[in-house]
Amino acid sequence: MNNLNFKIIYRFLGLTAVLNGLFMFIASPFSFYNNEPEGWSILNAGIVTIFAGLLLYFFNKPKSTNIQKKEGYLIVTLGWLTLSVTGMLPYLFTGSIPNVTNAFFETLSGYSTTGSSILTDIEAMPKGILFWRSATHWIGGMGIIVLTIAILPLLGIGGMQLFMAEAPGPSADKLHPRITDTAKRLWLIYVILTFAEFFLLKVAGMTWFDAINHAMATVSTGGFSTKNASIAFYNDIPLIQYIIIFFMLVAGTNFVLTYFALKGKIQKVFKSEEFKYYLFGIISVSAIVTIIILFFQDESLQSSIEHPMVYGASESAVRHALFQVTSIITTTGFVTADFTMWSFFATGIFFALFFVGGSAGSTSGGIKIVRHIVMLKSSFLEFKKALHPNAIIPIRYDRKAVNQTIVFNIISFFIIYMLIFIISSVILTFFGLDFVSALGAAASSLGNIGPAIGSVSPVDNFAHLSDGAKWFCSFLMLIGRLELFTVLILLTPFFWRKN
Amino acid sequence: MNNLNFKIIYRFLGLTAVLNGLFMFIASPFSFYNNEPEGWSILNAGIVTIFAGLLLYFFNKPKSTNIQKKEGYLIVTLGWLTLSVTGMLPYLFTGSIPNVTNAFFETLSGYSTTGSSILTDIEAMPKGILFWRSATHWIGGMGIIVLTIAILPLLGIGGMQLFMAEAPGPSADKLHPRITDTAKRLWLIYVILTFAEFFLLKVAGMTWFDAINHAMATVSTGGFSTKNASIAFYNDIPLIQYIIIFFMLVAGTNFVLTYFALKGKIQKVFKSEEFKYYLFGIISVSAIVTIIILFFQDESLQSSIEHPMVYGASESAVRHALFQVTSIITTTGFVTADFTMWSFFATGIFFALFFVGGSAGSTSGGIKIVRHIVMLKSSFLEFKKALHPNAIIPIRYDRKAVNQTIVFNIISFFIIYMLIFIISSVILTFFGLDFVSALGAAASSLGNIGPAIGSVSPVDNFAHLSDGAKWFCSFLMLIGRLELFTVLILLTPFFWRKN
Repeated sequence: MNNLNFKIIYRFLGLTAVLNGLFMFIASPFSFYNNEPEGWSILNAGIVTIFAGLLLYFFNKPKSTNIQKKEGYLIVTLGWLTLSVTGMLPYLFTGSIPNVTNAFFETLSGYSTTGSSILTDIEAMPKGILFWRSATHWIGGMGIIVLTIAILPLLGIGGMQLFMAEAPGPSADKLHPRITDTAKRLWLIYVILTFAEFFLLKVAGMTWFDAINHAMATVSTGGFSTKNASIAFYNDIPLIQYIIIFFMLVAGTNFVLTYFALKGKIQKVFKSEEFKYYLFGIISVSAIVTIIILFFQDESLQSSIEHPMVYGASESAVRHALFQVTSIITTTGFVTADFTMWSFFATGIFFALFFVGGSAGSTSGGIKIVRHIVMLKSSFLEFKKALHPNAIIPIRYDRKAVNQTIVFNIISFFIIYMLIFIISSVILTFFGLDFVSALGAAASSLGNIGPAIGSVSPVDNFAHLSDGAKWFCSFLMLIGRLELFTVLILLTPFFWRKN
Repeated sequence: MNNLNFKIIYRFLGLTAVLNGLFMFIASPFSFYNNEPEGWSILNAGIVTIFAGLLLYFFNKPKSTNIQKKEGYLIVTLGWLTLSVTGMLPYLFTGSIPNVTNAFFETLSGYSTTGSSILTDIEAMPKGILFWRSATHWIGGMGIIVLTIAILPLLGIGGMQLFMAEAPGPSADKLHPRITDTAKRLWLIYVILTFAEFFLLKVAGMTWFDAINHAMATVSTGGFSTKNASIAFYNDIPLIQYIIIFFMLVAGTNFVLTYFALKGKIQKVFKSEEFKYYLFGIISVSAIVTIIILFFQDESLQSSIEHPMVYGASESAVRHALFQVTSIITTTGFVTADFTMWSFFATGIFFALFFVGGSAGSTSGGIKIVRHIVMLKSSFLEFKKALHPNAIIPIRYDRKAVNQTIVFNIISFFIIYMLIFIISSVILTFFGLDFVSALGAAASSLGNIGPAIGSVSPVDNFAHLSDGAKWFCSFLMLIGRLELFTVLILLTPFFWRKN
């Protein structure tokens, strides 16, 4: 039906599966070390995955290694699906999650770095499975870095060209232009950050197992925890929570900026318009939330004593505010407290934050700060244009005029994002969710956040959703993670037309 | 501080007040006829208003009658505020609504053709006041026709130029180009529609008083009823409800199209892209809602027996579905049944409809169909552009290519609309509304709809809101009604800078 080079696509998917299987090999020792019988099942899952990947690789020898745009789109979406389909095998083989719907949801929630879970008792899981669960986040985060910094700008969608101007380019002070080189350098930073956080969490008092898991879930802005209470488990060890806040902040920052920072060019970081708004936004919203926690908590909301949390002291209020705001803006989704229990105003603020997102070129999901900046600048320009219709006023970002094509790209992203959000909320009510939970689940899944509001609040999980709702949320996590266009373009008829 | 011609602005406001006062004179006989003492108070309110208007008019003799854009913006916003400030006098003088916050809310809800009410017992009101309440809708609707068809295209904002291409123009088959003439012709249609509906409602069994009030509230897409139960009062007289459905449909249609239809050029109506989507949308969503009513009502939601409504028969289901969908899309806000009691899915659908709006150039509020059409066409174009980055593909509307400036206008409108919606929801939670009610009140006020969800559902009212929330919703009704830019531009610093 098309002149697509499917052989090269299958080859890439095969390689993806092989890499994924190797990570399962890394997961199994965590079970063996703890004398869990599940180690063998995880190993088996790895063998099956690698074998399938090798078959796919060797039975598809492409005549040409030339990759066109269309193949690029297919590789990205099918790549994430290959990860998810093979990645759920450890859950299924060990019987930790025996149901395919649940296993697929949990796996895609991992790779999309969302962090929504259908597990009701996380701590009862085998250690190997818990490690695997965190590993899906970490692999997904690695994928996203290559995708947003190296692949999407080449595909020319989602306005990604704009903020990547600083990234791979020919000039001397920039990152090396070739994709693989760029990817390697950014992955190095990713690995360094993971180890740094692991080390600090261990020093601050976590067990080495919890430290490695939380480090993987933080730098990928994923949000899976090894504890049922998420980071609220560490409410008595503020240092751990501050360390996680710091690394969530870094993970939500453009990795190119982090690269410059590690190279000592710190002034480049603070020159970035997106970073300034990002930091300013987190600090100012946290300040408002701190005031709510200290003075305006609505006690009538806190009827459930299931989750007693004490916020008397100012330090605790600042910490919880900063933690939750950072967690939602960076779309990590770790929880130290249930913000829906603070007040309606807090719920309102956090719901609005669901639509913010971190920085472009980070592992965070959502709409992202740079898009908001360009979009708002463009919209407010209309006021000036209304008074001076003939004036030509370009939008400036990082002191450079922005090409109108990119502005249109960004605005279209926002419109389609909001359209999908509204339609998805309605669809989720069709699948039986109440109105608030539907809005929450749609916004949270699409933004790759994790916790939401209503019956999927920070202290609940997604286990009670109907199968239809789970599959639909999985779909939202996928398209949200892959910047909408990458997936949705596959659903257009003209994509499948011959060139 | 500025070189604005304030004298001419004040003169216009004076005229506005005088006209408003004359309508109060029309309202008072309804009280006299029913031997209500409030007639005198309404008459006094009229005298005060006219006197104030005359003072404003005669003490401001402008040197030049030249009106610039900036004066245009000020006249529009201050005009609506003048109406509201003088229009609340009948409520205050009669003591029907003794509180200024409530009186202002009810009055602005009238002139903005929103239809949200703070009255808890409408039927206990004097007849003169009920007529006045409906009259505020009718006056507001008249104002909107001039505003959207004659003034805004001149001010060049909100993408209004596009759908007005068919309206005032030099060619032979079009409306007369001069504003006053255009306005007069459209007003004539407005008056004809009002009388036609009045006549039909009377024939169908309404009292003449209820008929004239409901006619005024329909053609303005306002939604104030003279009955506590709104149009559910007539659940036993389907004909009345079908008549109202028809006139809501017409009121939500571009008045220029109605003009052509009345002139016998019916083919022009069905050639309109906006009208086709408008009609198709209402019919298809009504079909879905009918199915929900017939087969998927959630009985657990209907615990409250306060509002018993029977929807057994198919005719009744079709009628209620059609009525509620038309009422919300045209932003009228009449109620025959509480859609939030049908199912979560129904609530979800109706909440999504809050963001649709009727046709441009009608009396309806909201985002409006034409904007959605242009916006979605523009966004989906990105998919094609992603594959063919160098192709130049214009957006076509009504078989004509749309200027990119207008596309930007429309998209900016949507972005600012959604931004205001999200921020307003958060602000309303600050004023103490729960999350659902805050979303509902914000969407409903901004879209000039009337009923919402949560504690401001179709069978509730806005009486229980805090004063702050009432003033804030009033502000939303005003900016929503005046197409955002008209009001918001006054809040920008550069508006007040000298040219």
